Amino acid sequence: MPERWEPLRERFGYGGFIVLEHYREGAARMMRDDGVFFREVGRNAWDPEAIIADMDRHGVDVMVLCTVPVLFYYWAKPEHTLEWARFLNDHLASVVAKYPRRFLALGTVPLQDTALAIEEMERCRTQLGMPGLEIGSNVNGANLDDERLFPFYEAAEALGVALLVHPWNMVGAERMKRYWGEWLVGMPAETALAIHSCICGGVFDRFPRLRMLFAHAGGAFPFTLGRIAHGWRARPDLCNVNHTRDPRSYAGHFWVDSITHDERALAYLLDVVGRDRVVMGSDYPFPLGDLEHGRFIEHMELPPETKERILWKNAVEFLQLDAGDYGGGSIAASESSDRTRGDSRTTA
Amino acid sequence: MPERWEPLRERFGYGGFIVLEHYREGAARMMRDDGVFFREVGRNAWDPEAIIADMDRHGVDVMVLCTVPVLFYYWAKPEHTLEWARFLNDHLASVVAKYPRRFLALGTVPLQDTALAIEEMERCRTQLGMPGLEIGSNVNGANLDDERLFPFYEAAEALGVALLVHPWNMVGAERMKRYWGEWLVGMPAETALAIHSCICGGVFDRFPRLRMLFAHAGGAFPFTLGRIAHGWRARPDLCNVNHTRDPRSYAGHFWVDSITHDERALAYLLDVVGRDRVVMGSDYPFPLGDLEHGRFIEHMELPPETKERILWKNAVEFLQLDAGDYGGGSIAASESSDRTRGDSRTTA
Repeated sequence: MPERWEPLRERFGYGGFIVLEHYREGAARMMRDDGVFFREVGRNAWDPEAIIADMDRHGVDVMVLCTVPVLFYYWAKPEHTLEWARFLNDHLASVVAKYPRRFLALGTVPLQDTALAIEEMERCRTQLGMPGLEIGSNVNGANLDDERLFPFYEAAEALGVALLVHPWNMVGAERMKRYWGEWLVGMPAETALAIHSCICGGVFDRFPRLRMLFAHAGGAFPFTLGRIAHGWRARPDLCNVNHTRDPRSYAGHFWVDSITHDERALAYLLDVVGRDRVVMGSDYPFPLGDLEHGRFIEHMELPPETKERILWKNAVEFLQLDAGDYGGGSIAASESSDRTRGDSRTTA
Repeated sequence: MPERWEPLRERFGYGGFIVLEHYREGAARMMRDDGVFFREVGRNAWDPEAIIADMDRHGVDVMVLCTVPVLFYYWAKPEHTLEWARFLNDHLASVVAKYPRRFLALGTVPLQDTALAIEEMERCRTQLGMPGLEIGSNVNGANLDDERLFPFYEAAEALGVALLVHPWNMVGAERMKRYWGEWLVGMPAETALAIHSCICGGVFDRFPRLRMLFAHAGGAFPFTLGRIAHGWRARPDLCNVNHTRDPRSYAGHFWVDSITHDERALAYLLDVVGRDRVVMGSDYPFPLGDLEHGRFIEHMELPPETKERILWKNAVEFLQLDAGDYGGGSIAASESSDRTRGDSRTTA
């Protein structure tokens, strides 16, 4: 995110926005403007050079940047969210422009307003050159099967814009106040609900060329697919109202990331969605992320081709990149030489 | 459940209870007494002979009966729930008394009132001879780490009462109205939340001899254990407030059932919680259940000893039964001879 921005409460005349309080060199608090503490962040939340230093330390050639879900602001007035999204997207684009071989970016849009969301998506794609967007798993409580969103999906499909779906505004949050429950239990539930909604709501059927990736290994979905598919067969009157296919048939349609923090879970995930559909994810720089950037994957007993697919090839396909744009051994970091990173000079 | 009961709205003077409307021979609707339809049920929801016929058809020697979560009535006045629980428990005990080699039962208690819950639990254990109880995954929205419940857990541990935790009153239900979402996404989330609460709330540590089984294969928990454990390590200030152990260390402490509807998911589950901790579950007679009673398990490539553990030995251990009480080939059904059911004459 940007290092600083104008307080939006003053600019827009109402509150609920996040301010970044830099309280000492390289340390800041993300605070809601009513004084509620959200999160502590460090330099690698806003300084590209700090991020690149971490990337080099962990042998990461290229990182895809996107904003933090708490900054989606889908709840604000649409024209204000649009203004904010343009600010964030311009900033992301400027970072990519400065370090074009190290960064890509996914934009954000005012998803509560379909027309404005499409407008900003088009700008992200055609003017800022972004390969995709990051969107929330719901829009102010409306799931992703909301028909209001269909023109947005249609435009994303037509523009070739990939969508990373990140959980936010977690379902059942009021029951999850203890032990980081919103993040540890709520986020996986939220993502499972998003996938279930896209399947049974017919989103994948109506927009078959739309590329969607669901964060955190698809949340609770992969392990509960048997239950979801059984329910679909047992109660078509409830589950198959949109004449969709067996939920199992959509495993392998959408992408997920690799953030399982567990070798067995990742192996199971590969088995369920296929080795072509798991993309290295980090959630960097946040503490729940894979801050070793896939080291556990490299240590797994997997075919080298599968590791290459997870570590870069699948991302290249999801984002429809030309891998040659990021090629060259010159960006390899000191530690990366003894690791099994895919060779980014190879075109996928 | 019983075939008939007195309408509780009239008995207790307020509404919200379920009535069973028999509208033709062998068919009834469970209706809330304000007229809201809950579920269609058939004879095998109330007639032991119909259940036994299904058991024989599927090679099931012994079934553990318990009530339906919608009948927990934790929301009612405690003395009314106690009266209702006694009615249900007496009925369950009468069925077991009539068919002692085919059925066991788990009781229900007014969990919203700790003293009354303990009172009825003691009656279930000492007077009705029940090996355990079925409880909800939350009590009117309070998670299972609620300290009010600790005396209940303490008494259950002392009495040797096993607890089956079944999801109900689903977290985030308002977001899950479509496509059977409460059942398909909400229940797994609810169960994950229950396990997370028991781990981080110190329930497993404080009551180490308390036997708990979480329905539906532990819900979303097994696949998200890596995330939960990573969160515990990354943010002990949030997750380890009760000085509990690494969440991974509790896998293998509690039991789960086998209801995954998926061979790969069951294999993953066995890997995570261990072959000693997965108990054959059916959710019979409801459509989301495994109404083939473990046939997919018998068809899996698993060591025979593992199948025996899942199909009966683990249940015997969870409920601390004497397997000999259910022994004898005389109860084997026609189809069961060619299947790999464990021999119930063998003591675990």
